[in-house]
Amino acid sequence: MRTLSVFESLSLDGYFTDARNDMGWARAGGDDPEFAAFTAENAQGGGALVFGRVTYEMMASFWPTPAAAQAMPKVAAQMNGLPKIVFSRSLTRADWQNTRLIKAHPVTAMRALKAEPGPNMVILGSGTIVSMLAGAGLVDEFQFVYVPVVLGAGRTPFEGNDHRTTLRLLGQRAFRNGKLFGRYAPGA
Amino acid sequence: MRTLSVFESLSLDGYFTDARNDMGWARAGGDDPEFAAFTAENAQGGGALVFGRVTYEMMASFWPTPAAAQAMPKVAAQMNGLPKIVFSRSLTRADWQNTRLIKAHPVTAMRALKAEPGPNMVILGSGTIVSMLAGAGLVDEFQFVYVPVVLGAGRTPFEGNDHRTTLRLLGQRAFRNGKLFGRYAPGA
Repeated sequence: MRTLSVFESLSLDGYFTDARNDMGWARAGGDDPEFAAFTAENAQGGGALVFGRVTYEMMASFWPTPAAAQAMPKVAAQMNGLPKIVFSRSLTRADWQNTRLIKAHPVTAMRALKAEPGPNMVILGSGTIVSMLAGAGLVDEFQFVYVPVVLGAGRTPFEGNDHRTTLRLLGQRAFRNGKLFGRYAPGA
Repeated sequence: MRTLSVFESLSLDGYFTDARNDMGWARAGGDDPEFAAFTAENAQGGGALVFGRVTYEMMASFWPTPAAAQAMPKVAAQMNGLPKIVFSRSLTRADWQNTRLIKAHPVTAMRALKAEPGPNMVILGSGTIVSMLAGAGLVDEFQFVYVPVVLGAGRTPFEGNDHRTTLRLLGQRAFRNGKLFGRYAPGA
């Protein structure tokens, strides 16, 4: 059974996007060599990336561009090359290289995907999808990078979760750029 | 000039209270001896505690009780003994031992308080007050304990902050109970 992880850069007040749906603030500190190595290593894991439509469209409009290739060449190459899954009822096509568009309900589809052979999967951003899949107990690991910024408003990856979920800290790391990383498994 | 710190136990999604205004979930893991020592040491700093009305009333209804004395005797004794300030326009009295009630606007009052001689100050909880004072540049240090729990809904200590604030990580610590602690100063 392949695993599903969630990887989120969060502000200290828990948001993965700001009030204008921007995620660019999370890239601050990318010039910390240790952090850059950590990010590149993560992307190198070779998993499949999973998105909701909103995050997919945001990422698809950034990573294939020359700006991304110039700013973060290794990560951009990996993001573009990795297999990708986007959940959307409204999209009719998904043109970012190596993307599979899934129109079925994310919970049903993810149950089937986890049972299929294939690489481990990582959700990036995609609050609506994270809430649904976490609520259904389908997330095996949560990875949060706390960016040293307070946004005041934005979207959390757990919006609409109406029950408390206790997690277990598996490991943590601090970076010179001020980012704190924590890995969590479901269940106390 | 005395300093003003903010100390918050936050859920991984950034809330200091849950949707029912409860902060009790943040006490999980209090039986970790290293964490208990850290908490007691913090309270021992001898500062003054600063609250908004909502957090004040919540704490005033817990710490002076036999239940608190039994569950966390050291912390309870310190919480009850320390000088306390509560900002409220609606309260007419504040009976929790050693409390000063301030009816003036928190920003004006805090500017004056910081210029007075006296112990350093720490805000606990009190989202409305944190937002106001942080927005006015009056907070010298932010201390966050990330509790390994996802609440899905609640109040953040930065509600209504309409601008992005970049902070600088000063130090961090991880505890066996799964709590991650980070200390931050304003300014990148």
